[in-house]
Amino acid sequence: MKVAVFGFGSLNYYLNKLNVPERLGGEPPYGGSAMALEFAKAGYDTVLADPNLDKVPAEVIKKLEDAGVKLTGDDVDAAEGADVAILFTPFRAGITFKVAETILPHLAENGVICTTCTMSILVLNSYLQNAVLMEGREDVGFSTMHPAAIPGTPQHKHYLIATNELLKRPIVSEEQIERLKKLAEDAGKKTYLLPAELVSPVGDMGIVTTAIAFAGAIEYYRVARDVLKTRRSMTEFQIVQSLQVVASLVAKYGLGGLIKLLNIDAMKDSLKSMVLDENIQKTTLSASEILEKLPEIAPELLKEAETFTPSEPCHPSAPSPMLLNYMEELVGDDVLKGILRETWKKFYSDVSQREES
Amino acid sequence: MKVAVFGFGSLNYYLNKLNVPERLGGEPPYGGSAMALEFAKAGYDTVLADPNLDKVPAEVIKKLEDAGVKLTGDDVDAAEGADVAILFTPFRAGITFKVAETILPHLAENGVICTTCTMSILVLNSYLQNAVLMEGREDVGFSTMHPAAIPGTPQHKHYLIATNELLKRPIVSEEQIERLKKLAEDAGKKTYLLPAELVSPVGDMGIVTTAIAFAGAIEYYRVARDVLKTRRSMTEFQIVQSLQVVASLVAKYGLGGLIKLLNIDAMKDSLKSMVLDENIQKTTLSASEILEKLPEIAPELLKEAETFTPSEPCHPSAPSPMLLNYMEELVGDDVLKGILRETWKKFYSDVSQREES
Repeated sequence: MKVAVFGFGSLNYYLNKLNVPERLGGEPPYGGSAMALEFAKAGYDTVLADPNLDKVPAEVIKKLEDAGVKLTGDDVDAAEGADVAILFTPFRAGITFKVAETILPHLAENGVICTTCTMSILVLNSYLQNAVLMEGREDVGFSTMHPAAIPGTPQHKHYLIATNELLKRPIVSEEQIERLKKLAEDAGKKTYLLPAELVSPVGDMGIVTTAIAFAGAIEYYRVARDVLKTRRSMTEFQIVQSLQVVASLVAKYGLGGLIKLLNIDAMKDSLKSMVLDENIQKTTLSASEILEKLPEIAPELLKEAETFTPSEPCHPSAPSPMLLNYMEELVGDDVLKGILRETWKKFYSDVSQREES
Repeated sequence: MKVAVFGFGSLNYYLNKLNVPERLGGEPPYGGSAMALEFAKAGYDTVLADPNLDKVPAEVIKKLEDAGVKLTGDDVDAAEGADVAILFTPFRAGITFKVAETILPHLAENGVICTTCTMSILVLNSYLQNAVLMEGREDVGFSTMHPAAIPGTPQHKHYLIATNELLKRPIVSEEQIERLKKLAEDAGKKTYLLPAELVSPVGDMGIVTTAIAFAGAIEYYRVARDVLKTRRSMTEFQIVQSLQVVASLVAKYGLGGLIKLLNIDAMKDSLKSMVLDENIQKTTLSASEILEKLPEIAPELLKEAETFTPSEPCHPSAPSPMLLNYMEELVGDDVLKGILRETWKKFYSDVSQREES
């Protein structure tokens, strides 16, 4: 079986910006190249493709070659006959789309394209729909080999593999999933099978926010159950209302808008009545401290908030799954898929426009 | 100026279930009746309406009457000529809708209906649209006198007043807002003016989750700025993705579904690489502890998760504001208002159906 990994992983970022060896441990290579290294060591026919191999220190190249990793600057060469193609390409979506389009026609029959931490597999799948039809490559599956850690560090002990759960139409076959599981396990890793749409929020760096939001749901549930003694449906309603509103305000207006609109002083005063049991509300207390210390934590965001005015109206609390249900009833499943694609595009462009302004 | 408060506030809940005097302080009355008490003390002509006044202890009734609060079991009597009508009615939406419809025709010209912690003003406003037209009461404004605390406790030092910010069509006039501000300030309270749709997530008991989600955004922003050194747009993108997914999973599948689908073990393993600086990640550490201790915090939710299977597919990461933008382009503003109303209805009914099952 042939495995092709695209993207070496930025040594400059890992070593000089993030200080991975001091902070997390391990030694170069990190990223896609570390994945290739472990697949080769596990006995797989492994190719690593990257356009900038000439910038990699000789001793790192040697480590890879000694383990049997084939190195190339040519994506097509790497893709030829590959049963598993793993994209550890840069975060800028355009590059990943382009590499995926380039390699698609060259993969082995029933090959599977996997994204990692740099791209949602559903976004890529949706983008590649035309190419799949044009090339007649409906046999190719789409999943993930998401490291949910930096490959090459001791924390990297697992891969998240995307399944068809929650999807209307499958993007990957059972056999392809089994192939990825075996590859990961042969490389000494644990595997987690997750619904495709949940791989990024669980595996990406944003797991910080995912875990904290999860804690916000559970801690409030506990207070509601043990202290407030309110109905479960009300608890869940309020959890959704809170998370949906914060998500929407950031999506629509950015962090400066979030701070201005939610009103930090109002939140602080309101929260005071809701610290009802300090023993079970450690996350609440930590959140309260962030509210208090915001001027020293992020003075630049408070400055943004001062001059913020909303660009246009918005209904931040409208719950997304119910909007989707309603839209599907109105326009049908096919149109809905197009709407979802456009919605994501709008989101990407709104966020990056805000940054430029 | 006449102020009418509807709903005494459940003494049984405050005293016997929540133990407010021990936990937060103050003494009865609590809730709507405590609000009426302070308005009367501030010199306002104040009526308090409740169908169950006969169950209130005589000494509490005396306290209210001594301060000049008029007590009645008749909502229409209370509403007659009221300039400000405050609904401290029970959480079950049906009762609040009914009281609001009953009192609407009897309010003074330019009267204003305010909800508190028991009902979103936008949901009420949307529900009452027909009645407003039928009765020709477009003069009546809709806002909030949200205590964001339990009235009668020492934590209650403020009111949240809903403004038209973020709305396309105003629901309250400047004069009506000023009237509410004066009423609150005369009662010795600070006022916060908030966009109507943000009053509930900031003022309700769910502020616990709102504040924690806010902390999740800020703490991750700080890590991204200082340690990961990633682009601001990527940070905001991941914050939205994380919060939107957790919100959607709870809305669609409840807390049991959330736990099953996000996969607690995968989250724990993924989070390990993202504790990069313990000094600035206290909320992350607290979230990590909740993930570790979930079996003792909420064994009943883990049990639900074990047997959970998703009722139908879902796209949990679709960002709600962009969906709304896209829908407005498709169907126009008027239809969108109807869709929002239906979306909320669907949400309420999905949540309560889940509970019964």
